[in-house]
Amino acid sequence: MKRETMDPVAIIEAKRDGRQLSSAEIDFVIRGYTRGDISDYQMTALLMAICFRGMDPDETLALTRSMITSGEKIEFRGLPALPVDKHSTGGVGDKITLSLVPLVAACGVPVPMLSGRSLRHSGGTLDKLESIPGFRTDLSLEEYRRGVESIGAVIMGQTEELAPADRKMYALRDATGTVPCLPLIIGSILSKKVAGGAKALVLDVKCGLGAFMPELEKARALGRSLKGTGVVLGLQVSGFITNMDQPIGRFVGNALEVREAIEVLQGQGPPDATELTLTLGAEMLLLGGVVSSREDGRQRIHQAIESGAGRQKLKDIIENQGGDPNVADNPDLLPRADKIHEFDSPETGFVAGWNARLVGLASMRLGAGRLHRAHTPDPAVGIELLRKVGDSVDKGETVARVHYRDRGRLNTALQLFSEAFSITPARPKPPPLIIEEI
Amino acid sequence: MKRETMDPVAIIEAKRDGRQLSSAEIDFVIRGYTRGDISDYQMTALLMAICFRGMDPDETLALTRSMITSGEKIEFRGLPALPVDKHSTGGVGDKITLSLVPLVAACGVPVPMLSGRSLRHSGGTLDKLESIPGFRTDLSLEEYRRGVESIGAVIMGQTEELAPADRKMYALRDATGTVPCLPLIIGSILSKKVAGGAKALVLDVKCGLGAFMPELEKARALGRSLKGTGVVLGLQVSGFITNMDQPIGRFVGNALEVREAIEVLQGQGPPDATELTLTLGAEMLLLGGVVSSREDGRQRIHQAIESGAGRQKLKDIIENQGGDPNVADNPDLLPRADKIHEFDSPETGFVAGWNARLVGLASMRLGAGRLHRAHTPDPAVGIELLRKVGDSVDKGETVARVHYRDRGRLNTALQLFSEAFSITPARPKPPPLIIEEI
Repeated sequence: MKRETMDPVAIIEAKRDGRQLSSAEIDFVIRGYTRGDISDYQMTALLMAICFRGMDPDETLALTRSMITSGEKIEFRGLPALPVDKHSTGGVGDKITLSLVPLVAACGVPVPMLSGRSLRHSGGTLDKLESIPGFRTDLSLEEYRRGVESIGAVIMGQTEELAPADRKMYALRDATGTVPCLPLIIGSILSKKVAGGAKALVLDVKCGLGAFMPELEKARALGRSLKGTGVVLGLQVSGFITNMDQPIGRFVGNALEVREAIEVLQGQGPPDATELTLTLGAEMLLLGGVVSSREDGRQRIHQAIESGAGRQKLKDIIENQGGDPNVADNPDLLPRADKIHEFDSPETGFVAGWNARLVGLASMRLGAGRLHRAHTPDPAVGIELLRKVGDSVDKGETVARVHYRDRGRLNTALQLFSEAFSITPARPKPPPLIIEEI
Repeated sequence: MKRETMDPVAIIEAKRDGRQLSSAEIDFVIRGYTRGDISDYQMTALLMAICFRGMDPDETLALTRSMITSGEKIEFRGLPALPVDKHSTGGVGDKITLSLVPLVAACGVPVPMLSGRSLRHSGGTLDKLESIPGFRTDLSLEEYRRGVESIGAVIMGQTEELAPADRKMYALRDATGTVPCLPLIIGSILSKKVAGGAKALVLDVKCGLGAFMPELEKARALGRSLKGTGVVLGLQVSGFITNMDQPIGRFVGNALEVREAIEVLQGQGPPDATELTLTLGAEMLLLGGVVSSREDGRQRIHQAIESGAGRQKLKDIIENQGGDPNVADNPDLLPRADKIHEFDSPETGFVAGWNARLVGLASMRLGAGRLHRAHTPDPAVGIELLRKVGDSVDKGETVARVHYRDRGRLNTALQLFSEAFSITPARPKPPPLIIEEI
């Protein structure tokens, strides 16, 4: 179809009927939608048709390219190593970015990171960071560039200039039931990363009860497709499929997770959060070219914890983005909920599960997340798990503490929360944290 | 799901994932959309999901009921017989309404008819009627009621008050590639008919090259489903699947088709248009209860042609709707194109086909239809077929005449038109006009 004769309805019908779209057709739609020439409802029709018909690798690549060129593309100058980003597909208690970024930057690999907000049961890095008094996630593109070039890392939200097609499409997908769709997920993730100036990308594809793609097969398909498309776009891509059956670490909630990330930077973090930080950090150093093996990478990240260099880098990042860097030394400066409810085990045995999705929904109901898009998350509330899968518990022993502000919300959250917890008489084998390489 | 907790996204996701929607969910969406509480893009997401997942008979019924109750419902008073409507699924050269309605009304069965406009290759009764000088298709609801109660027939467009959900949804479907979808087609047709006060409905489901559902199996499914849903809604429904491989009659185009309908009313119409008028007319008289057999029905329609009662009723209808009734006696009062192009057969043989879809598209390109929604159809232009399938032709003999205004448009139309025509050395057997009963 020639561009001058292109008709959005004909393109929708083609995808609806299972025909492959050409790069020109995809580009026509993405450009038209970004400019406002193609309506929200025509875009929705195409998105839903893509949910049913899918996109082949060529179409996915064309989609991602059009989304990248819908806005500006950052090129950093004078960096000491390749800029490397990390992307997690979203989970519960996933505060890894907050310890990982300063450690990797402290080891000399720049991290230009465009993060997201909480979505349903899943937390959002920007919401977590905003619990630090004064912290700004809405830097200008120029501040972003300067931050990465001078401090070595920025963690902020997408700007108007970077992949505007993605911004607009994402808001639409959230309102139209078109979120869980592989090519659309790939276009969204990769367009932001490439436009934001990353040259390599480490993936943490979550799988399990609290992941957006709970099944291993789907997580694998997502990982493979992200890697394949990313490589054609000139990105170095590697990463892991990791378990998201139970929340990561002990804390779920905005300020609570910042606190726990600082514990990781102090060498006092819980085993799973520390292990993920080491694994993903080593991979980022490898892709960034400052180490030649994963083992060396782990060693370097470990040293940056021991030496306090990571915690110092976090302070630099916070200060650069207008926040109070003293929280990195004194986490009590973070907001705290004034009330705590203790959740006791109804039986003696072993923790069999903390359903991450239900724990995440409970935290959202407490106010930590967004029930509707207009909600502002409460930085202080959240959940603290004192026992995790495989730990022994006695009947009546406190296994979790709920940090709350409002009793009504507590009660709603507790209904979900008590469903999330399960106990078993025999010690279960906790699932492996790192499932496989992508 | 309780109404107060209903969430449009959850309903979209349910249909997307293949779950049945409850009547309450369907009603929530249709009411919300009609009021403007649910956006065009959320409605589009649901419509496209329905295109892929379908609707079972309960859902289709609930959809149709909600669409009916989205507006007013007409109840006629003091009618001499049951009000009967006819619905054709759309074709090329299908001017049957224009001869059928006056004949059936002349035989004592009231016809309250809400008609449509041309859509792609298919013509529209309203566009045809508006080629009659002064003819109004935008009567008020009160004028509609009075016209049916006094004259026995009105042919007009849908008003704001009748099935407003359908009006809004139809415009959206046309722009989003969600037109060819069985439950949506059924909801659209039946909601208008029931809201418009019809108590019985005769269907003319088209099948073949120029139909919106070209395959017999799909036409059958549409017919069965229309009948099944209509009967549950309290309508009497019967009808036929009829052939739409070649255009009906000799003329395609607005004023040209009015002229041909008048010929049918004068007893001088082409065999196929006359036969369809007799068959559908007899069925309407039977459902209306004024005859007790199809044979009696045909006889009565035939008499109304012979006596001139049908033509007189057409004059009453035209006069009641503000048009010039003299056109029924003197069709030269209708607009005429000033130029005629003669299309000659390139070979000697027999006409094997006039692809109805291509002829319809050619007529649209001449200006008789709508390339874009904003176009106003030209009443005068169109196509005249001098030979039809099975007729013998000599090389160089004129087989069609193209009535045109603009040479550029003629050339575009001729490309389609010459593709529409095919010739064969042996006399082909024309396909049966009436394929089967529904």
